[in-house]
Amino acid sequence: MKLVRYGEPGKEKPGLVDRDGGIRDLSAEIADIDGTTIDPEQLVKLAALDPQSLPQVAPDTRLGPCVNHVGNFIAVGLNYADHAAESGMPVPDEPVLFNKAPSCIVGPNDDVLIPPGSEKTDWEVELAVVIGRKAAYVSEAEALDYVAGYCVCNDVSERNYQLERGGNWTKGKGCPTFGPLGPWLVTKDEIDVSDLSMTLSVDGEVVQDGSTRTMIFKVPFIVHYISQFMLLMPGDVITTGTPPGVGMGFTPPRYLRGGEMMELSIEGLGTQRQLVRPT
Amino acid sequence: MKLVRYGEPGKEKPGLVDRDGGIRDLSAEIADIDGTTIDPEQLVKLAALDPQSLPQVAPDTRLGPCVNHVGNFIAVGLNYADHAAESGMPVPDEPVLFNKAPSCIVGPNDDVLIPPGSEKTDWEVELAVVIGRKAAYVSEAEALDYVAGYCVCNDVSERNYQLERGGNWTKGKGCPTFGPLGPWLVTKDEIDVSDLSMTLSVDGEVVQDGSTRTMIFKVPFIVHYISQFMLLMPGDVITTGTPPGVGMGFTPPRYLRGGEMMELSIEGLGTQRQLVRPT
Repeated sequence: MKLVRYGEPGKEKPGLVDRDGGIRDLSAEIADIDGTTIDPEQLVKLAALDPQSLPQVAPDTRLGPCVNHVGNFIAVGLNYADHAAESGMPVPDEPVLFNKAPSCIVGPNDDVLIPPGSEKTDWEVELAVVIGRKAAYVSEAEALDYVAGYCVCNDVSERNYQLERGGNWTKGKGCPTFGPLGPWLVTKDEIDVSDLSMTLSVDGEVVQDGSTRTMIFKVPFIVHYISQFMLLMPGDVITTGTPPGVGMGFTPPRYLRGGEMMELSIEGLGTQRQLVRPT
Repeated sequence: MKLVRYGEPGKEKPGLVDRDGGIRDLSAEIADIDGTTIDPEQLVKLAALDPQSLPQVAPDTRLGPCVNHVGNFIAVGLNYADHAAESGMPVPDEPVLFNKAPSCIVGPNDDVLIPPGSEKTDWEVELAVVIGRKAAYVSEAEALDYVAGYCVCNDVSERNYQLERGGNWTKGKGCPTFGPLGPWLVTKDEIDVSDLSMTLSVDGEVVQDGSTRTMIFKVPFIVHYISQFMLLMPGDVITTGTPPGVGMGFTPPRYLRGGEMMELSIEGLGTQRQLVRPT
């Protein structure tokens, strides 16, 4: 099942994607796609619906972020060995965690804003995990029981703020619009995320071209691991790191400029397109 | 005005403190104390109520965290020069930011749990700022316009997870129960936070005894500064750093053990008491 949220920013309704790729309105069934409606057991009930029986939504409707009310937006850093190398950082012994401000979340095709004065705004195509059920101290073997599904995330990053302004990475990861999520929340029954191709292009030039196959720490381990340090709540999102090809890794580095278009895809999880704009 | 949330965990109602220190029920006026009800303009309307006209609440009622639905729990590190010294870290040129998982938030007198296997769980009495209005790129001069008020926060920390497990501080700051907030959300009209004494004791022994006067970066600068890196939302909480006297700074270090009682106070913002328990 591919769940979406569609409509104007802040007024999105829940929907799902039908067999023809069209959007159907789910608002008679559930109030929203968020932590209150994506428990894996609830999703089984939704999956029993016949999408073709639901009202159709106009095909050009804007998509919002595919999950609402994200309580914690957690990120794993340096989770692809080649990306660690291009960042000049060692491959970590255990996952590196940081946070993105939930207020940075936008729809998959919304504009991405370069912060005022920023010169180092960068891209990162990532597989994101959406938590469906409260998880504390869960084992790796049972970790997927707590997952609702997956989506594409562009972990947009400002490298000066992230790396040159002292302390943690917080400053460079949560600027407004730095967290496009979607187009779809694909439920875990529908996809095996262990070997999905993932690409990102800027103005048509492919800059990232990788696969989830080369992730150092895999999804079950990541969910298990994070749950040792914090209570994961339904609706939390974990973005799991990026393959090589970010702008910081170019020689010389190549950062985003106003007017450029990013297009990023993960096999089975859909495509995002973001116009880059100055704030 | 001192706002509280009272009742069983997850079912708290809004209230306020009357002139005798009793709690009055606010639930006929507002649904909750959260980002939807603490815009400074809304607070002015609430302040016009006569507390003595509201229903009384039983005096032994549990208090919950004084603000609900915290969307982002942001923390400033090393914001007292003496604490930076005891942590063996340089005084930062600009604020160090990190995040606490919002799921760690508990009431001011709820038990604090030592994570399984943890040997380095530590305390930190802090002044926390509660955001009342959406803030992006605000100046230092106007920063307080976006603040609803203040409360006490115990920025409970696991030092092994924070400092010895790689990467950012995220792992050691958001374990379940690591964020007691309250007892009260004191609205900004009622208190000047520039010189408030702050203490924390463990089993009656005073271990932290400082004042907000020695903060390196003050509240208006902090709100301004963070708003350059992320959109602050109503209900977000910023905890602003701790004075010297944390367990990590003792020789040898002295960490929390099951059965100990923490008591922490900030002048004008009330007192928290937490029993420490193994998970």
